[in-house]
Amino acid sequence: MSVKVAIVMGSRSDWPTMKEAADILDTLGVSYHAEVVSAHRTPDKMFSFAETAAERGYEVIIAGAGGAAHLPGMISSKTLVPVLGVPVQSKALSGMDSLYSIVQMPRGVTVGTLAIGGAGAFNAGLMAIQMLALHDPALRERLQQWRKAQSQTVLDNPDPRS
Amino acid sequence: MSVKVAIVMGSRSDWPTMKEAADILDTLGVSYHAEVVSAHRTPDKMFSFAETAAERGYEVIIAGAGGAAHLPGMISSKTLVPVLGVPVQSKALSGMDSLYSIVQMPRGVTVGTLAIGGAGAFNAGLMAIQMLALHDPALRERLQQWRKAQSQTVLDNPDPRS
Amino acid sequence: MSVKVAIVMGSRSDWPTMKEAADILDTLGVSYHAEVVSAHRTPDKMFSFAETAAERGYEVIIAGAGGAAHLPGMISSKTLVPVLGVPVQSKALSGMDSLYSIVQMPRGVTVGTLAIGGAGAFNAGLMAIQMLALHDPALRERLQQWRKAQSQTVLDNPDPRS
Amino acid sequence: MSVKVAIVMGSRSDWPTMKEAADILDTLGVSYHAEVVSAHRTPDKMFSFAETAAERGYEVIIAGAGGAAHLPGMISSKTLVPVLGVPVQSKALSGMDSLYSIVQMPRGVTVGTLAIGGAGAFNAGLMAIQMLALHDPALRERLQQWRKAQSQTVLDNPDPRS
Amino acid sequence: MSVKVAIVMGSRSDWPTMKEAADILDTLGVSYHAEVVSAHRTPDKMFSFAETAAERGYEVIIAGAGGAAHLPGMISSKTLVPVLGVPVQSKALSGMDSLYSIVQMPRGVTVGTLAIGGAGAFNAGLMAIQMLALHDPALRERLQQWRKAQSQTVLDNPDPRS
Amino acid sequence: MSVKVAIVMGSRSDWPTMKEAADILDTLGVSYHAEVVSAHRTPDKMFSFAETAAERGYEVIIAGAGGAAHLPGMISSKTLVPVLGVPVQSKALSGMDSLYSIVQMPRGVTVGTLAIGGAGAFNAGLMAIQMLALHDPALRERLQQWRKAQSQTVLDNPDPRS
Amino acid sequence: MSVKVAIVMGSRSDWPTMKEAADILDTLGVSYHAEVVSAHRTPDKMFSFAETAAERGYEVIIAGAGGAAHLPGMISSKTLVPVLGVPVQSKALSGMDSLYSIVQMPRGVTVGTLAIGGAGAFNAGLMAIQMLALHDPALRERLQQWRKAQSQTVLDNPDPRS
Amino acid sequence: MSVKVAIVMGSRSDWPTMKEAADILDTLGVSYHAEVVSAHRTPDKMFSFAETAAERGYEVIIAGAGGAAHLPGMISSKTLVPVLGVPVQSKALSGMDSLYSIVQMPRGVTVGTLAIGGAGAFNAGLMAIQMLALHDPALRERLQQWRKAQSQTVLDNPDPRS
Repeated sequence: MSVKVAIVMGSRSDWPTMKEAADILDTLGVSYHAEVVSAHRTPDKMFSFAETAAERGYEVIIAGAGGAAHLPGMISSKTLVPVLGVPVQSKALSGMDSLYSIVQMPRGVTVGTLAIGGAGAFNAGLMAIQMLALHDPALRERLQQWRKAQSQTVLDNPDPRS
Repeated sequence: MSVKVAIVMGSRSDWPTMKEAADILDTLGVSYHAEVVSAHRTPDKMFSFAETAAERGYEVIIAGAGGAAHLPGMISSKTLVPVLGVPVQSKALSGMDSLYSIVQMPRGVTVGTLAIGGAGAFNAGLMAIQMLALHDPALRERLQQWRKAQSQTVLDNPDPRS
Repeated sequence: MSVKVAIVMGSRSDWPTMKEAADILDTLGVSYHAEVVSAHRTPDKMFSFAETAAERGYEVIIAGAGGAAHLPGMISSKTLVPVLGVPVQSKALSGMDSLYSIVQMPRGVTVGTLAIGGAGAFNAGLMAIQMLALHDPALRERLQQWRKAQSQTVLDNPDPRS
Repeated sequence: MSVKVAIVMGSRSDWPTMKEAADILDTLGVSYHAEVVSAHRTPDKMFSFAETAAERGYEVIIAGAGGAAHLPGMISSKTLVPVLGVPVQSKALSGMDSLYSIVQMPRGVTVGTLAIGGAGAFNAGLMAIQMLALHDPALRERLQQWRKAQSQTVLDNPDPRS
Repeated sequence: MSVKVAIVMGSRSDWPTMKEAADILDTLGVSYHAEVVSAHRTPDKMFSFAETAAERGYEVIIAGAGGAAHLPGMISSKTLVPVLGVPVQSKALSGMDSLYSIVQMPRGVTVGTLAIGGAGAFNAGLMAIQMLALHDPALRERLQQWRKAQSQTVLDNPDPRS
Repeated sequence: MSVKVAIVMGSRSDWPTMKEAADILDTLGVSYHAEVVSAHRTPDKMFSFAETAAERGYEVIIAGAGGAAHLPGMISSKTLVPVLGVPVQSKALSGMDSLYSIVQMPRGVTVGTLAIGGAGAFNAGLMAIQMLALHDPALRERLQQWRKAQSQTVLDNPDPRS
Repeated sequence: MSVKVAIVMGSRSDWPTMKEAADILDTLGVSYHAEVVSAHRTPDKMFSFAETAAERGYEVIIAGAGGAAHLPGMISSKTLVPVLGVPVQSKALSGMDSLYSIVQMPRGVTVGTLAIGGAGAFNAGLMAIQMLALHDPALRERLQQWRKAQSQTVLDNPDPRS
Repeated sequence: MSVKVAIVMGSRSDWPTMKEAADILDTLGVSYHAEVVSAHRTPDKMFSFAETAAERGYEVIIAGAGGAAHLPGMISSKTLVPVLGVPVQSKALSGMDSLYSIVQMPRGVTVGTLAIGGAGAFNAGLMAIQMLALHDPALRERLQQWRKAQSQTVLDNPDPRS
């Protein structure tokens, strides 16, 4: 089966964050391609990645970046494959710069933005799965089981002191 | 053909913003259902809306809200249909409260968040189209034409003073 | 005597914060019920908790959550028992997201919000006591003694260098 | 019947905001006392107001102020009657200063804070009613009817375009 | 000679910050009185402190507090002695709450606010000295020498790498 | 009698704000000198103004500026006369930039900062009066009367609806 | 003489802001090229613009954009010609998003960022002139005259009330 | 060959940040002068530094400062040599104060501002090199090689997990 999810990030240092997207994809048995693609240091590679994303069969691209985080928006400007953006927590401004740079896109080029940091990366992976599951009954089943189990874990441990 | 996109919002006063999502869906010939569903004033309706979203055939839900904007996240907690969130610009805090309330979701429940205000609503509609277009060649073709035309308009008017 | 105070929180990781509410309730001899109730991972439990809060005799609900903190507001949407909200300090945005998500409620559904973090949890417990003390002279007496002692501690140690 | 709710504010210019608290109290038939009490310009009056609040029978004090909004917290330091704080929207900082000054109280002195501006004032009035309704069945009945009607209005007008 | 400077703070935990005010006063041979005076936990003491400040001979009051920092403004509301405010760095909001609560005073009651944290406390002490030096030639001379020495230290070490 | 107060500002457009400092000085019969002194456009004039401020008899300098508001701090670096800073409300950032630029001074050079905008200018004038009044019994008397009248106005109009 | 300055902007709606850069270049007799180049809607044009900037003789590029303002940083990623960035004031976040998106560039790709809005655009034009003037004595002379005149205007109108 | 780049900073404690500017200049073989010049503690030295910058042959000045960071703007007010500003990360406000104080300059005096902290210092050095390279073909060649190598490093390590 072809790989339908790509995870790209601006720097190797983003991996500890972006790994959470990979983890949930692994958990639910969804293949993905992971690659460092820097908007600023490898702009041409970024463009060719984005231009060929559709023909390579990607149905969702997860892009993480920090600071002046241009990667998700620029990839989206070069493809019609849906892009999910993950604001990586930055040092001085704690990811508020990453968040604004990713989410405040102008009319016509879209990025679905998740939370700052690892929770956002996890949810980007999960949302990719939700999108694929619309057309993949087996995955939908696994996703439903996963969510039930997640709820059950909370239900089974109601006492915060235990 | 069944309606695959739902646009919900917390209040009728959100319509001038959310209408931009409807406009781009109209432009590209995608049907949608639009409804006021308040997380705080009609919580039961919100839950039954979310619970039945999949069986009614929605493949993407666009949810807009302002202030303590709980609607997108709460709907997402009750369905596996992907949810796109639109932070409506609020009075005192200009939508920064709406943005944080929508985007900072915890691991396990996802909202793909767009920009504050009308541009975000427009892009929520557009991103819904991108998602549907993955499995609808005719829509994909219209989408590609639309984007080309959008670029061409900019290319045809390069002089900012004219 | 029935338990009149409930302390709920979105995650077990909120307990070190919310424990401060429990501590002051313990100090002043007020019983409480503490439970993990996640708005996003256990929405149905949250709704049934809120729906039955009044009949179970709760006169005040203390709800703590972090990030896109929907728990206090959603509980309040399903009950008329007064809800006190505690914004738990979050990682990237230091609880500013939790604060905005809890305090910026729309007209018609109320959350009395306390400070970010442990001080807020402590004060939520204390404010619950103040509310109960209006109709419980013995508790009022204990509360007055506690506050006098608190002041006296400051008065007895006026020299910051000692 | 004695008046159980006091509405105080730092300046006459806060009345257009604080009037929303009065309005919902009027709607639900709850008497209140409204007075200008400035923390900074009439500190002695503020203290004597707070000191005598309990004996005058107030069971909840709604205090609104803007900017360096000291009124709610200072009143609370002088009484054990529960205080609800309303951050009035300020000019330069849009009420973010009012919000922080009111909500970030230290351990031991409590203010239940509502949203910035008129919605917060409205909800302060409503939360006062919720508190009183715990011991007033007739008021509780009116409150339940009011909330049902509020929900029904939303339910009756589901189409945002109509 | 009478003591003309008072240093007050809301909590003993503020002393590591406020000590910097004491240090510069010590350095330049200016006596001061230091005391814990909590706006919220000892409001009556705060008022009597402020009411008697002028008759005790204080010519400047340095007041430090954190979070909902009401101490400087409330003291100023009860005396005409100039008040310098020091925003103590808080945990969740890093002193932004302290700064807004201290600096955003309304027309008619003044607080001259210094920087957040230790630098602000140091400068509050220094500004008190500048005020006293206007009427104390010997102190003015010491102050001028101190500032010259401070500049000379920078001038003598121009190489950042040494 | 010599003029003891100088009001300087970075631009003529700051006058509507800074005029409030002049107004309260006029009201209480205190002479002042008002002048446009731009840190950025007339740096040499700024330096000579600051260098000669003491010998010209100024006992307090009120300096207002907006945006990257360097005027108060730079004047203070060149004189030991106490400087009060007024952050003028700026267009994009509403004076938050002005506030940070003025208040966050490093150890060793002081600016007593007032609120953003007209209220801050008014209070800068009032605080200058408080400083002068320490050594001017007649002015102190007028100041006390003014403050009493200010309080009385509030006391005489306690009803916010009238 | 070849044109050495390019002014680009993401949208025609940025022209009222960016025109201020053009105005000061006109005033000092420096030719420029002005063009709409959208990072998101015309990414290929943006890249070819940046790739050919050096060979076309540009020695400085002024790029203005608002919101998720990727234009300045992306152009800089494709050329070694110095780029000056102008954050255009945005609707919801007043240009704070534009500022963070432009200034928070990672190591290795540079944008010299000016103030938000028209003042920033003016200064981008002026800084371009300063750069060119280093190697153009006649321009340097005009620049010095302009600055002297600018100072003189302030010096000639010292009275803010006139 | 004369030294064309000066690196100045407000305090020796800024060196760990500003050293990154020196590092990239060293890497590409560009000489520079580094010196501590404090706007607030050595204002006269700052002015004489700025006044003589052009005649000493500097073609670009890199100025770093934190908090109320006046150094870059004040130097620029006294010279026509282009100034690049580096906001040093501050303690309480994480460099947001430094950023606003440096970037929000008024019309007529320019500072090209880089990112907060070390990345900003690095890029200030790099942008200085870009400016010099316009008139120095050998440097331009080294710069191009450096950038190619930088891109190649990213291209050679595309797998984030390796």
